[in-house]
Amino acid sequence: MACTTAFSRCSLNGDMFASKSAARNNSDILKGCPISTKQPLHSKSVYIFSDKSSSGPLYDRKCCKQSGRLSSMRRVQCCALKVEAKPLFNVGSKFQLDDVIEAQQFDKDTLSAIFEVAREMEKIEKNSPGSQILKGYLMATLFYEPSTRTRLSFESAMKRLGGEVLTTENAREFSSAAKGETLEDTIRTVEGYSDIIVMRHFESGAARRAAATANIPVINAGDGPGQHPTQGLLDMYTIQREIGKLDGIKVALVGDLAYGRTVRSLAYLLAKFQDVKFYFVSPDVVKMKDDIKDYLSSKGVEWEESADLMDVASKCDVLYQTRIQRERFGERTDLYEAARGKYIVDQGVLSVMQKHAVVMHPFPRLDEISVEVDTDPRAAYFRQAKNGLYVRMAILKLLLLGW
Amino acid sequence: MACTTAFSRCSLNGDMFASKSAARNNSDILKGCPISTKQPLHSKSVYIFSDKSSSGPLYDRKCCKQSGRLSSMRRVQCCALKVEAKPLFNVGSKFQLDDVIEAQQFDKDTLSAIFEVAREMEKIEKNSPGSQILKGYLMATLFYEPSTRTRLSFESAMKRLGGEVLTTENAREFSSAAKGETLEDTIRTVEGYSDIIVMRHFESGAARRAAATANIPVINAGDGPGQHPTQGLLDMYTIQREIGKLDGIKVALVGDLAYGRTVRSLAYLLAKFQDVKFYFVSPDVVKMKDDIKDYLSSKGVEWEESADLMDVASKCDVLYQTRIQRERFGERTDLYEAARGKYIVDQGVLSVMQKHAVVMHPFPRLDEISVEVDTDPRAAYFRQAKNGLYVRMAILKLLLLGW
Amino acid sequence: MACTTAFSRCSLNGDMFASKSAARNNSDILKGCPISTKQPLHSKSVYIFSDKSSSGPLYDRKCCKQSGRLSSMRRVQCCALKVEAKPLFNVGSKFQLDDVIEAQQFDKDTLSAIFEVAREMEKIEKNSPGSQILKGYLMATLFYEPSTRTRLSFESAMKRLGGEVLTTENAREFSSAAKGETLEDTIRTVEGYSDIIVMRHFESGAARRAAATANIPVINAGDGPGQHPTQGLLDMYTIQREIGKLDGIKVALVGDLAYGRTVRSLAYLLAKFQDVKFYFVSPDVVKMKDDIKDYLSSKGVEWEESADLMDVASKCDVLYQTRIQRERFGERTDLYEAARGKYIVDQGVLSVMQKHAVVMHPFPRLDEISVEVDTDPRAAYFRQAKNGLYVRMAILKLLLLGW
Repeated sequence: MACTTAFSRCSLNGDMFASKSAARNNSDILKGCPISTKQPLHSKSVYIFSDKSSSGPLYDRKCCKQSGRLSSMRRVQCCALKVEAKPLFNVGSKFQLDDVIEAQQFDKDTLSAIFEVAREMEKIEKNSPGSQILKGYLMATLFYEPSTRTRLSFESAMKRLGGEVLTTENAREFSSAAKGETLEDTIRTVEGYSDIIVMRHFESGAARRAAATANIPVINAGDGPGQHPTQGLLDMYTIQREIGKLDGIKVALVGDLAYGRTVRSLAYLLAKFQDVKFYFVSPDVVKMKDDIKDYLSSKGVEWEESADLMDVASKCDVLYQTRIQRERFGERTDLYEAARGKYIVDQGVLSVMQKHAVVMHPFPRLDEISVEVDTDPRAAYFRQAKNGLYVRMAILKLLLLGW
Repeated sequence: MACTTAFSRCSLNGDMFASKSAARNNSDILKGCPISTKQPLHSKSVYIFSDKSSSGPLYDRKCCKQSGRLSSMRRVQCCALKVEAKPLFNVGSKFQLDDVIEAQQFDKDTLSAIFEVAREMEKIEKNSPGSQILKGYLMATLFYEPSTRTRLSFESAMKRLGGEVLTTENAREFSSAAKGETLEDTIRTVEGYSDIIVMRHFESGAARRAAATANIPVINAGDGPGQHPTQGLLDMYTIQREIGKLDGIKVALVGDLAYGRTVRSLAYLLAKFQDVKFYFVSPDVVKMKDDIKDYLSSKGVEWEESADLMDVASKCDVLYQTRIQRERFGERTDLYEAARGKYIVDQGVLSVMQKHAVVMHPFPRLDEISVEVDTDPRAAYFRQAKNGLYVRMAILKLLLLGW
Repeated sequence: MACTTAFSRCSLNGDMFASKSAARNNSDILKGCPISTKQPLHSKSVYIFSDKSSSGPLYDRKCCKQSGRLSSMRRVQCCALKVEAKPLFNVGSKFQLDDVIEAQQFDKDTLSAIFEVAREMEKIEKNSPGSQILKGYLMATLFYEPSTRTRLSFESAMKRLGGEVLTTENAREFSSAAKGETLEDTIRTVEGYSDIIVMRHFESGAARRAAATANIPVINAGDGPGQHPTQGLLDMYTIQREIGKLDGIKVALVGDLAYGRTVRSLAYLLAKFQDVKFYFVSPDVVKMKDDIKDYLSSKGVEWEESADLMDVASKCDVLYQTRIQRERFGERTDLYEAARGKYIVDQGVLSVMQKHAVVMHPFPRLDEISVEVDTDPRAAYFRQAKNGLYVRMAILKLLLLGW
């Protein structure tokens, strides 16, 4: 979300635009929007109380009122505001989420609030009024690289709430070398056709750029080696749903800890909670990197590395297994083969795990979890995938309708 | 359809899950589902009276009740049951279709029942209540190889009944060599996002595996050289609609009879009816194989091979032409050219056909039917393509709402 | 639109079809439709008063009546009629649009009528009755070459009016060399699944062939080097919205005037209005071709070529900039680089432009307009892209529901 209607309106006081503005509909008022003065997005900055509704009549806020959900929302008409220290969630009122770009934008209260909505989403029944709250809204899935699982999850979420979807699996064509269009131009075109953009990109930081340009909400569905925040949210939600709490838990992160985007996000997010302890179990070549270790230490979060999966399995509440990614090993397939076979979750591992503990995995899996584990009630990974649906429904609802 | 909620529920009586189950929603109860005990699907086995509704609230059966169509359905709560000799259609009550995997699963009564529903589908008018019976349902089209015609037909069928669609044209990415996910894992993910899966796959038997895994209905939209059952259904439906009966008819199968999936299915299905006679007209290199001939003979079905298309055309009720597939001839393009030009349906052939007879073709066609034939009322192939829509609407209705 | 139900009905008077027709539904009556007598489409021919509704019950005109919009429409039941000199728009009554194939089919009155509807479209609010006028209608986007921008614009338009979409991004597969299906066969299949076809093709004239085959409306979304009529319409609509009129304006066409489909269409369409003056500003290698210059002269439209962008910018009402297409230069990248850098719209150009003037661009752009221009209220190109939505909504409404 970049430049709001309200902001533009304020700047529209010169004679220059007066005659033209009068003859046009509201959307034309955007002519006066000085894009060059937009606030750049960076870590932990949030835009609160800004008017996310686009400017054309199709996006008129009246439609929101119809759903009876925005009446109590404080959509104060002022420009996007960067507030460094201010949390997204405002005690005593409700927070307004504008974009979902990175795991770091969520604090403990925001997570709780999102999970509360996700819990409501689980209860929505087919053809109930709740299943139609996004009727009339249009989501564009702008995927610059394919990710069918993520795309289907978002599209299902949108449709489960009565919304509609425009799909672009080959968005790369928009900005092909041959044509050379900038991401910003693409975003400004697509925002004219839709109410919210879900973007997958191959470049780290692309989602942030899109959000800085768009006048409608942008959700980062993964930007290269960068962020994939809804995966982090669904992992956290799954732990809370499975274990019943996020404080005071013991979490084993297993597998590719060096390159795995998900385990890094999870470590970051869990560090916000009390008395969390991490176990890192991985082949030497893909060990957890120092930045995360240092971050955890700085936050007073306990962690230890271990080569003994059985020992760790017997102690942890959550065993989060990940796939060793072959592409990280280049020509050294011998190293890859050694690494991938080292820590397998099978019946043996299950047999030492506590009864209340769960096994998680972000998918896809190869054989790092044996299929024999699937039938154990502690195998939470299919439920975890399903939770992605509820968390994305919650995010869509919060971005489009507010609290 | 694999393991039902009811089945899992029965097995959930150990202390082990008690505390966790209480804190979770119904879907978590699936934890106890012993997948390893699932009944393997094989030819002619059917699953009856099983509860196809998935376990989350989104899939709650309440939604079905809203449509007022399931009240009389006997969705007995028991596990998937393999009944070797029992027909799908239960006299005195209505059958429950769980998956559509292969032509062999349909007997005469089931075909009649499906065609009765397809006939109703033809009569549904835009924006009538009938056009909304699948409102709130979500179909995933999981296509591991492209087949635009089949995909569009299914998606149109779903939307003509008010349902919604998640499209995956490049599903192969799900299970790419690079990532190596199993079909089973993909299915268990996708069933979390949708209510029914339509799958096209490049491997024979893939649809059966998917159905054995999924807790929601699976429709086989073609699995490699294997089955494509809805094509068989629409062919049968077209004959009944055009000729008025399926008993006592004379059917000429022309063209590629060795490799053509459709003519083989059609021969199999028509053999269930009385006094059907087949004429096989094909170049020597692509003659009907012995397995089908033997099967027909064992069922007492009359058949003969002929090289005289004019003679056959003058006698038959249905002339089913097929495309000679170039890819079957490898380097021998000379053989291909000879074969493809041998039996062309043109004005000459039409001139000897009976007035009530029809020409059919599964599409795409090259020049094995001259375009001059298109304008003749006996050219039934475009109506045949359209019938695919009605048959698929019927199948979707039966799988999701029951009779 | 090719052969209508009514037409077929007239020809169905022989004994030959009598018995079959009686036993079938209305769609079967098409059997008698003599395709070979269809009127070929060519420049400036129009089909008026023909019955566009397809023949199956799904497409029954009752649905149109429900919307209360067709009662006053004169859908005279006669065959498609080619009327060389007759305008689409009938003074004193309302015109009926059957297909949108090329810019040349629109005269001044038709343009006004379409723009009037587009203006209404801008005012449609989410979840208002107006946003559901195409409920129950199904649009097939048959794209033989990818064009995400155009496809999304059409699909958004359809969904903003409550309609549904079947998407085929890889329609080329339909007619692949391997399978060899004709466009005509594809169209006759797809028209069985949908109510309107939006087609993008790589061959000039493909849209015309599709329209000549289809019994439902066809919209040309670009056919190779041929036509892209909705781009022309949205350009014209944008000028009217931005400048307030189409008569008496001065228009600068800048950039690739030799190969740019959009500037050629725009010149053609604007020539229909009074006292329009054109300035052509382009590198020598991509100058406006003589056919357009001759056409303008023959219509008494003033034009001049200029190499002085600043001078032209200071005089014009509309500065229509276009991208120099690299692919036109082959190996001569030196010529390309020289050409593309020659006429850039930047702050300097803006500074001499009149206050009421606007900059337009059909997108995608490279650097022929500096991003610094984006924030100027006279930068109309993002509004222009958005107008594509409204114009396409209008076209869909007019083709499916009539005036």
